[in-house]
Amino acid sequence: MLENIRIVMVHTSHSGNIGAAARAMKNMSVSQLYLVSPNDFPSVESSVRASHAVDIVNEAVVTETLEEAIADCELVIGTSARERTLSWEVDLPDSMAINALDVAADAPVAIVFGRERTGLTNEELALCHRLVHIPTNPDYSSLNVAAAIQVICYELYRHTLTGQSNKNKKILAEDRPATAGQINAYHQHLCEYMDELDFLRAPNSDMVRQRLMMFFNRAKPTRRELNILHGLLTATRKKIT
Amino acid sequence: MLENIRIVMVHTSHSGNIGAAARAMKNMSVSQLYLVSPNDFPSVESSVRASHAVDIVNEAVVTETLEEAIADCELVIGTSARERTLSWEVDLPDSMAINALDVAADAPVAIVFGRERTGLTNEELALCHRLVHIPTNPDYSSLNVAAAIQVICYELYRHTLTGQSNKNKKILAEDRPATAGQINAYHQHLCEYMDELDFLRAPNSDMVRQRLMMFFNRAKPTRRELNILHGLLTATRKKIT
Repeated sequence: MLENIRIVMVHTSHSGNIGAAARAMKNMSVSQLYLVSPNDFPSVESSVRASHAVDIVNEAVVTETLEEAIADCELVIGTSARERTLSWEVDLPDSMAINALDVAADAPVAIVFGRERTGLTNEELALCHRLVHIPTNPDYSSLNVAAAIQVICYELYRHTLTGQSNKNKKILAEDRPATAGQINAYHQHLCEYMDELDFLRAPNSDMVRQRLMMFFNRAKPTRRELNILHGLLTATRKKIT
Repeated sequence: MLENIRIVMVHTSHSGNIGAAARAMKNMSVSQLYLVSPNDFPSVESSVRASHAVDIVNEAVVTETLEEAIADCELVIGTSARERTLSWEVDLPDSMAINALDVAADAPVAIVFGRERTGLTNEELALCHRLVHIPTNPDYSSLNVAAAIQVICYELYRHTLTGQSNKNKKILAEDRPATAGQINAYHQHLCEYMDELDFLRAPNSDMVRQRLMMFFNRAKPTRRELNILHGLLTATRKKIT
């Protein structure tokens, strides 16, 4: 679905921002970059800042007008630093991502970013079907354009992953969580030692026992960690007796 | 709650990234910046890239070590570009934000970002209580550090707006999580004891030390639990000498 997502940068002044945007996109598996009348492109600066995403910069499509850049898109989403009072639908990035990916399953979707200083004009916004607003500090709301592209691409990528994040992690047996029985056995071992030490004479000793049990259960040691803890206890008991 | 969020940048090479990070933070109402042994700071470049967030750069706290930067924090979250197979809890930014804001309602929380090229070392990760992983393109996963800070601060800010954290939980002081400094002090105490016991003669003793550190950091004992553990250790040492 991300193959159908197109990032459109309108009248970008600083080519370094184009490079940073390309990197932000590639990090999030978004690869289609359109540049509407960039001020200074191609340039060394855009390639340097792109780092390993220079392929996205090299393959960027340059157009004269925003209309050309979005002509074949089924959904065009404009970004706005301001929460406008006009009559667009303004989404948060979260719900924007869900909408965009829905459409992108079948057709190209453009997300349009304006000039560094002034954003999109009303004429450009009028070409958009919806708006997205990245929530920001009201006292300092002007995001760097590459940072805004980072947030939007992150939201898109995040939503493609839903429910698949932790699979396929290979974990060694000894790095797996200890079983309840194993933790319990360590706790027994510890309590025996504390009895030997007369550590639990106090009237609240049951409470201490229980707190330690809760601690180790909550801590969820791995098998390897539990082995170290057992070893330490065994060495201590040997020393004392 | 965002006033208790502290962004910690470890051994940053390029001061431009410090400026870009400050801007990303301020856009999302995060203002506490700690710099652990930055390579080149203060610098013109960091102020230029900060734009209107130069106040955050000017008020950044510079420390020699990561330990100093996090000593008073109740929760320390490390960022990792890799999905590790080790035994940390690795959260997505979404759930990280909920956890972090919960704790930040009452106490400082650090989110730690590593070097541009190599991230955090295992020793630094061992000082973290949890990890967060920003999901990325498996073919190009290395986010620019300021871009990573942008995503994390965006997630935090976003969650302050939806009010999803469980604030207003009344917790007794002794049932609050121990601070990083308190856990570190217990670990020191334990290591001294293990030295006395000659428990760490083996060639892999550094590994054992580090695993125990990781375990206790991940376990997040409360202050009360830590007191019990200290008490047990003190009683043991008294018995042995």
